[in-house]
Amino acid sequence: MGRWEPDARDRLVRAALDLFSEQGYENTAVAQIAERAGLTKSTYFRHFRDKREVLFGGQDEILELLAGGIAGAPASAGALVAVEAALVAIAVTFTEERRANGPRRLAVIASNDELRERDALKMTGFAAAMVDALKRRGVSELGAEVAAELGVLALRRAYSRWLEAGGDFAEVARRALEEVSATAAALERAE
Amino acid sequence: MGRWEPDARDRLVRAALDLFSEQGYENTAVAQIAERAGLTKSTYFRHFRDKREVLFGGQDEILELLAGGIAGAPASAGALVAVEAALVAIAVTFTEERRANGPRRLAVIASNDELRERDALKMTGFAAAMVDALKRRGVSELGAEVAAELGVLALRRAYSRWLEAGGDFAEVARRALEEVSATAAALERAE
Repeated sequence: MGRWEPDARDRLVRAALDLFSEQGYENTAVAQIAERAGLTKSTYFRHFRDKREVLFGGQDEILELLAGGIAGAPASAGALVAVEAALVAIAVTFTEERRANGPRRLAVIASNDELRERDALKMTGFAAAMVDALKRRGVSELGAEVAAELGVLALRRAYSRWLEAGGDFAEVARRALEEVSATAAALERAE
Repeated sequence: MGRWEPDARDRLVRAALDLFSEQGYENTAVAQIAERAGLTKSTYFRHFRDKREVLFGGQDEILELLAGGIAGAPASAGALVAVEAALVAIAVTFTEERRANGPRRLAVIASNDELRERDALKMTGFAAAMVDALKRRGVSELGAEVAAELGVLALRRAYSRWLEAGGDFAEVARRALEEVSATAAALERAE
């Protein structure tokens, strides 16, 4: 307890997904997750605030990367190019470990209303972080909101495509955003 | 108890908002809401599943109206025109009573994480209902997702504008969707 566990976080996530899949999210306690991972409950709580956060870890890092990607886009870039930079910036977090856990993680979230709500708010948080960063670049409120919503939709589509087929997340996300924004423009023309 | 209370639902919503504003959402029990409304707890539970649902009532009706609006749009209508029909269809639920309660309702939701999550999932549910209805019209999966996200963004913008300035919700929503879709097309051109 208190000692450095280099892969504690990953072990906790894997143990949690094992237990949630075996016996259900509701029937699993934090103490069991820690035990399965060969760690203590207090180690668990150094990494995750509560039981459900083991499914949503790393969100703060993603928020920072999204905002940083937008802030770091060339000054001449329009809102969609800045959103593309945000999606490319978060690619570092889409590791093989994360891909391996993805399908079970999605299945657990889908099984529980509280988790689905938490996941929906996570997406809202991603959109809000992009809206703020875009407005700081001088993008209008409406332009920022539209670009951020298209970005979140592209991110969701890229995530499921990447879970299925793998590959470089940055490239998958770029293609998804291109499809989404071209579709948005075509809808307007078709109206 | 058990007798017909014609305005029970509105009274419960008003009593809940009074109590949540006075003493906080967390510190209010369903029994208190019922008492303040001059009704019984079992009347409360005939109208709302739990404490927080008093803030999210009418969602099923809105889902049905959204889907019905899209299904009822002219066969020749594109995806955005069908989404416009969905937003116009829900205008009947935006009553003066709802407008009067709106600002306090939003303040309570913003004060509590669990309520913000519930609200985010509500928006996800609106988008999913529109996606399904659009796909049944033959709109592609991607086209349906983009049109539905733009529709939800327009709905959120219309709701806050309508709370501030009132007016015919259908008209406010139409204008909001027009702005949102024109902005989406302009972003693509500016890329």
